[in-house]
Amino acid sequence: MTTENLVQQIKLKKSMLCVGLDVDLEKIPQHLLKLDDPIFEFNKEIIKATADFAVAYKPNLAFYEAYGLKGWKSLEKTISFLQENYPNIFTIADAKRGDIGNTSRMYAKAFFEDLGFDSVTVAPYMGKDSVEPFLEFPEKHVIMLGLTSNQGSEDFQLSKIENDTYLFEKIMQKSKTWNNSERLMYVVGATKPEYLKIIRKHLPKSFLLVPGVGAQGGNLDEVCKYGMSDNYGLLINSSRGIIYKSSGTDFAEAARNEAKAMQQKMEKYF
Amino acid sequence: MTTENLVQQIKLKKSMLCVGLDVDLEKIPQHLLKLDDPIFEFNKEIIKATADFAVAYKPNLAFYEAYGLKGWKSLEKTISFLQENYPNIFTIADAKRGDIGNTSRMYAKAFFEDLGFDSVTVAPYMGKDSVEPFLEFPEKHVIMLGLTSNQGSEDFQLSKIENDTYLFEKIMQKSKTWNNSERLMYVVGATKPEYLKIIRKHLPKSFLLVPGVGAQGGNLDEVCKYGMSDNYGLLINSSRGIIYKSSGTDFAEAARNEAKAMQQKMEKYF
Repeated sequence: MTTENLVQQIKLKKSMLCVGLDVDLEKIPQHLLKLDDPIFEFNKEIIKATADFAVAYKPNLAFYEAYGLKGWKSLEKTISFLQENYPNIFTIADAKRGDIGNTSRMYAKAFFEDLGFDSVTVAPYMGKDSVEPFLEFPEKHVIMLGLTSNQGSEDFQLSKIENDTYLFEKIMQKSKTWNNSERLMYVVGATKPEYLKIIRKHLPKSFLLVPGVGAQGGNLDEVCKYGMSDNYGLLINSSRGIIYKSSGTDFAEAARNEAKAMQQKMEKYF
Repeated sequence: MTTENLVQQIKLKKSMLCVGLDVDLEKIPQHLLKLDDPIFEFNKEIIKATADFAVAYKPNLAFYEAYGLKGWKSLEKTISFLQENYPNIFTIADAKRGDIGNTSRMYAKAFFEDLGFDSVTVAPYMGKDSVEPFLEFPEKHVIMLGLTSNQGSEDFQLSKIENDTYLFEKIMQKSKTWNNSERLMYVVGATKPEYLKIIRKHLPKSFLLVPGVGAQGGNLDEVCKYGMSDNYGLLINSSRGIIYKSSGTDFAEAARNEAKAMQQKMEKYF
């Protein structure tokens, strides 16, 4: 998918909502557990219920790998379901991968070619040659960790380095010089809105994937206020806050209502 | 597996060799491709041929994920084969994972409980709360990226931060204060032996997983000379240099000879 396609969806739906599909068998409605593939059934209902308000879906790979072969099968079915029924919605493999070149290339093949995701999240620690292999795929996007939403982001990301810049700033600056960097996006946690101004100085046009609204306590209004760019430039993620809104048989409707409420909060910034 | 068990194996075999199982269907002997599960068959033969000289095996997850469901099945069979036949050999899931706490916990469950690996590699960028969930499992080890073997390691890992230390040093220092850090090991590339002295100052006892000998050009003697600790403290990995030594029907014998040659080079440091 091109960036233009994504921007069109955002404009059409007046929404920057990304729904995180972090499916945990201990948290989904118990009546689904008797079905053959509870994870896929849960995802399917959540997607159908929220697709009017969402411009992206983001399965978190850990939650599928934790169920081994079965989990991987549920992931394959989920991405196929999205591609067949909602080809205009952006898909993100939240995998946070990154390794030496030949290994990164194998991960890229797995997520872009075999599974067919539009984008994948990657970690920056190993530098340029660990990220560029992901950027070689036309119309595919790479979402690199910038400033994350968790407390541990303060351990290293906020270290001051040469010229009094933060490590995360150096990563953003440097990555702009990499091959195909126009298809790079960045993860910036909603729990740190005070840094969004600095980040927009470095990255005036890049899309930011913003987790941490909802269960982690980030403020949606502040994120929109300081984070939006000329072409919207935000994908605001909520996972647990939407998909586990209800654990009863009304879980899909409850998720829909929550997604709608978030979309309505965003609408005023359009 | 406890660290003592690992040290015993090293002593017994006079070897610190880790064999990396980076199985690529385009590189394995072509006669294996007619078998039902070529990846597993290849691994099985490589393991049987090299087990006299290896103290650890390290499947690289990317190479299994690239083959989807089939790849995941081959991985499960490989780790089961190791556990049943070589329970004294240390196993490493080379996955380089790391995410917010609840997600890292799911990855830890996948690699330690479901697959039963002894250790997993993780990325440090997201800090303490992204790594500690992996350290909660008794007798399981976490191998964190320190100074990697690739060129991109210079982009950020060698950035100078407060007090004139490198970023990778800060990560090593800080991680020693984390819960259960006695089960932390570190990845240090063989291509940077000049940094091993500094690293041993920070981590006199920790095990280091050292990739980059072989295909990437690292020098085995320098790694032993500057990297060994009182209890050996090294796992020296070779992947392509061993497993793809021959692409003919003699691939297992060729791998055995190469593994033996590496063990013999190490023996003089015992």
